Amino acid sequence: MREISVSTRRREELVDITSSVENAVGATGIPSGLCVIYCPHTTAAITINEGADPSVAEDMVSGLRRLIPQGWDFSHMEGNSDAHIKASLIGTSETVIVDDGRLVLGTWQRVFFCEFDGPRKRVFFVKVLGRADTG
Amino acid sequence: MREISVSTRRREELVDITSSVENAVGATGIPSGLCVIYCPHTTAAITINEGADPSVAEDMVSGLRRLIPQGWDFSHMEGNSDAHIKASLIGTSETVIVDDGRLVLGTWQRVFFCEFDGPRKRVFFVKVLGRADTG
Amino acid sequence: MREISVSTRRREELVDITSSVENAVGATGIPSGLCVIYCPHTTAAITINEGADPSVAEDMVSGLRRLIPQGWDFSHMEGNSDAHIKASLIGTSETVIVDDGRLVLGTWQRVFFCEFDGPRKRVFFVKVLGRADTG
Repeated sequence: MREISVSTRRREELVDITSSVENAVGATGIPSGLCVIYCPHTTAAITINEGADPSVAEDMVSGLRRLIPQGWDFSHMEGNSDAHIKASLIGTSETVIVDDGRLVLGTWQRVFFCEFDGPRKRVFFVKVLGRADTG
Repeated sequence: MREISVSTRRREELVDITSSVENAVGATGIPSGLCVIYCPHTTAAITINEGADPSVAEDMVSGLRRLIPQGWDFSHMEGNSDAHIKASLIGTSETVIVDDGRLVLGTWQRVFFCEFDGPRKRVFFVKVLGRADTG
Repeated sequence: MREISVSTRRREELVDITSSVENAVGATGIPSGLCVIYCPHTTAAITINEGADPSVAEDMVSGLRRLIPQGWDFSHMEGNSDAHIKASLIGTSETVIVDDGRLVLGTWQRVFFCEFDGPRKRVFFVKVLGRADTG
């Protein structure tokens, strides 16, 4: 397992972490298997989406903000319940296939660390499990 | 890893891909492990939900459309930011347990390819990683 | 694969299942790998979020209820389409890294069984796949 740091600069932001994940996968030397990218925080998440046009990530942030406004009446006193809900909706981890020693992403796909209650110093984990399949 | 094609017929649609996934799992001959069903597109997703009554899939499509209308004011100029957001909410992949050489789904569960910006020719990947556990 | 029972007491509720999952992982004796927690129901889900303050789980339930009200006009006649949609948004499973024979959760993270159409007797599955990586 590899732990990688990421610093976020805004309350809500998507940070492209694809290169770090690819380096971590390459370093294992595992030719074929599964790679899990895991977020150990409860107000952040991991997603995979388009990275070519940065407006997609911006629309994701603004769309989620519109969906679950921070100002909704919540019980949790820290004022970040919206961030906890967004984290569970987007999800704590992503699993990507490893083939020929590389992450198998679609043409437009990038891996993003999703900050919903920043700016903060954060980390994420990368774990690769390998074994040949016959399929 | 196996790549499987799927053609969608509407802008938003859930296509039951369970049989294709089961065939891909059977072809590996792996008795016990994990199966990942992965979508390499950024305006489509994979989910697991009820397949017995087709109205559940219809309600999923209409509910998501009501949640994130295509007409919201977005920056991305392709007019499909709603589809990108839905893709990240539903998720790029599903992981299912393989036991006795078969996908372990619940009684009512089926695996669906979720199209949010069709109709299009699409693909998805199936990867099985196997190893006995003692649990 | 281990099957574990859980009884829910309300229509919508998050039940902390972390201890059961940790016990199941410990029982496998696998030092390093991936653990999948899987929900075989279509109106329930698995998530990972904050467990220290129970108001976070309450806000999750109330926030999701506000997002997708049970009273929306749906086709499915059982009156639980909201629960099916919530199940797909939150997700059928979670994947957690296993290291040194233990689940690697963040400081505030707990694993929750999410009931969206209870109260009911439910089950979930825990599967651990192990193999050393070099990363």
